Amino acid sequence: MNLSTLQHDVADGVLTVTLNRPDSLNAFTVEMADELEWTFRHVNDRDDVRAVIVTGAGRAFCAGMDLADTGNAFGLDESLRPTLADMDDLDDPRLRRVRDTGGRVTLAIHDCRKPVIAAINGPAVGIGATMTLAMDARLISERGRIGFVFGKLGITPEAASTWFLPRIVGLDTALDLLFSAEILDAQGALDKGLVRSAHAGDELLSAATELADRWTKGKSPVAVALARQLLYRNVTLEHPVDAHRVDSLAMFYTSIADGAEGVAAFREKRDPRFTATASSDMPPFYADWTR
Amino acid sequence: MNLSTLQHDVADGVLTVTLNRPDSLNAFTVEMADELEWTFRHVNDRDDVRAVIVTGAGRAFCAGMDLADTGNAFGLDESLRPTLADMDDLDDPRLRRVRDTGGRVTLAIHDCRKPVIAAINGPAVGIGATMTLAMDARLISERGRIGFVFGKLGITPEAASTWFLPRIVGLDTALDLLFSAEILDAQGALDKGLVRSAHAGDELLSAATELADRWTKGKSPVAVALARQLLYRNVTLEHPVDAHRVDSLAMFYTSIADGAEGVAAFREKRDPRFTATASSDMPPFYADWTR
Amino acid sequence: MNLSTLQHDVADGVLTVTLNRPDSLNAFTVEMADELEWTFRHVNDRDDVRAVIVTGAGRAFCAGMDLADTGNAFGLDESLRPTLADMDDLDDPRLRRVRDTGGRVTLAIHDCRKPVIAAINGPAVGIGATMTLAMDARLISERGRIGFVFGKLGITPEAASTWFLPRIVGLDTALDLLFSAEILDAQGALDKGLVRSAHAGDELLSAATELADRWTKGKSPVAVALARQLLYRNVTLEHPVDAHRVDSLAMFYTSIADGAEGVAAFREKRDPRFTATASSDMPPFYADWTR
Repeated sequence: MNLSTLQHDVADGVLTVTLNRPDSLNAFTVEMADELEWTFRHVNDRDDVRAVIVTGAGRAFCAGMDLADTGNAFGLDESLRPTLADMDDLDDPRLRRVRDTGGRVTLAIHDCRKPVIAAINGPAVGIGATMTLAMDARLISERGRIGFVFGKLGITPEAASTWFLPRIVGLDTALDLLFSAEILDAQGALDKGLVRSAHAGDELLSAATELADRWTKGKSPVAVALARQLLYRNVTLEHPVDAHRVDSLAMFYTSIADGAEGVAAFREKRDPRFTATASSDMPPFYADWTR
Repeated sequence: MNLSTLQHDVADGVLTVTLNRPDSLNAFTVEMADELEWTFRHVNDRDDVRAVIVTGAGRAFCAGMDLADTGNAFGLDESLRPTLADMDDLDDPRLRRVRDTGGRVTLAIHDCRKPVIAAINGPAVGIGATMTLAMDARLISERGRIGFVFGKLGITPEAASTWFLPRIVGLDTALDLLFSAEILDAQGALDKGLVRSAHAGDELLSAATELADRWTKGKSPVAVALARQLLYRNVTLEHPVDAHRVDSLAMFYTSIADGAEGVAAFREKRDPRFTATASSDMPPFYADWTR
Repeated sequence: MNLSTLQHDVADGVLTVTLNRPDSLNAFTVEMADELEWTFRHVNDRDDVRAVIVTGAGRAFCAGMDLADTGNAFGLDESLRPTLADMDDLDDPRLRRVRDTGGRVTLAIHDCRKPVIAAINGPAVGIGATMTLAMDARLISERGRIGFVFGKLGITPEAASTWFLPRIVGLDTALDLLFSAEILDAQGALDKGLVRSAHAGDELLSAATELADRWTKGKSPVAVALARQLLYRNVTLEHPVDAHRVDSLAMFYTSIADGAEGVAAFREKRDPRFTATASSDMPPFYADWTR
């Protein structure tokens, strides 16, 4: 894919995705949505990438939806008037302009086999804030800002943010963040538990890289991918017995693959040499499970 | 409805509901349950009300179920012996005395289109504690007390409190609060994350009003109602794609209504003039979605 | 059952279960899984037991799966290649070696009618860490360590831990604990909200006993059992109305049994004399509900 709104840089196993429309404060367009969705699906096939960092070019992370982008929500065909039943088939081409573009991105992040880290280098507002909720950690620069400003505009939180946000900060804080629609500074975001840590601006990316390494370096890519999906998928199940079903399969298949090497290395007090890849060696149940 | 256990006061868009049986420490009766349930359904039709505050008359918030009220649980017809299957039809008149009265109230709060704030002015015990869990914030006076005392009485937590409580304080603290059945003072409730803030007694209501204003003043009533329901409903879904379906509808319909005005006002750097009402202008999918 | 990996001690209503393979740092074997599963099912029939404490003999709590135990995951029949559909019938004897042994234990803890407290006296690693997540509180000794080390071994978190962990520490911390695979000391576990409190080694068991007493002494065993199950089961429901259905039944049946005595004692300002037992007097809906 020829990227026009993003920059991709891979260094030592970490893909840095830079939202790259600095003259528009990296405002979110349909084109950016398409390129981000493609990125998070594509990266599952790139075995040279262990983890993904998302940041912004220039002084902003992402200033929200680009109101000048006529392809966005604010150029909708009002005559469509979709119903709940219409949404059953999300692939119906008539829904192309109805489906929330932010949600397409966060669903792709949710399906991703690699840890994803937000490095919030400046203001992250609207979809700039909600897209980070599907990522596995949010690090913020001292110059960062984050705000769920939908309520001030007469619109609603999107990008499946109401699914993610209460799991991160609890129901009470989630209600407060959405109702108040206020923009938090770095310390405010830290106090609310919305971000993991705050950093000097010139140390943000190295902190994000350090976290990416701590999470993935020397680990089995298949085990990392499965742990990520087990956490996001098992937590919502009605009864833990259904987590047990999938746990058993994940343990079975990793035990006879990288797990055998991991245990041998542990016994021999050496570093493991994992060989299974997240592109080709996910266990056979994975495709059915994540469909 | 002619209210005998509650007092309603509307000032500048905020409805204050005062539990008003001060001689009985505002103990909860079937009549109070009926009036509270009616209040939270009725307020959805009152476009002069942006937010609701619940507090108690006199020195208590609510001392729990009124044991002298023969209509309450402690006057049950033991021969009924209801089963799980019986509960399928909650409207079955034979269940009138079986259905938990506290749950009728918290379900009405859950369905409410306005933010609801508990101003806990004194002891809140049993249903006095659990009814506040369905509210969007709990503020407490220095004289406030809160306790889930069911375990000491040989009965069980009600009012759907086991659905709400762990989402607010986490599973561990929820277990501790229910098992211990202890009554917390204001500082204890703050330490456990059960309340948002503690206040001098004579500043409690103004703090609650300030929060109500911060959440709703100048905002679209439809967007506020949808944000509230999106949060309470999307968080429980098994997969975020189902949040995405509803998000897309909420964004579509708000974008072509108050959202258009909100964006125009933002561009023109002026305050928005929202016109959609929560009584009449909820989007067409809302009725199906919340059924 | 003749126990060879555990020690059972009952004192004043509290059963202490000691993982008792100190020469192997109490490493987890299939035999230990069987004995733990039996323990947590069996204790439901023991009316002399109000609460359960789990601790380890010697200097460890549990060093994880015993890699020398050929019955464990690392001796699997690779030709089985189970599918998601195969897991529908967990009782299928062909799955005996596929089903995660840790999950069998945590599912039994989940079903338990008594509060369960982990007294983590030393290192708790792998299944030694995950088994404690299904318990209602984790107390740790200053010498305690806890780590979800699966990622370093190329295997995945098990024992339904991805269902329990995010409910205890939140999604963000859960992701970090699993991805990093690091071993926390007592202070680290406290900081992450993974344990309730840290204690000098020689005060750990008395602190656990004190908590068990605070939770259960003088309480109705049926009300305690129901409160525990209401919390673990209602929190996952899609809509609170379904919590309301079960709440109503639990309140009905406790009100006409121990609740009547509890209320009478409260009115007469005396200690209640509860008589219903968790072995025989669970309400009639309980068996259907927990199936």
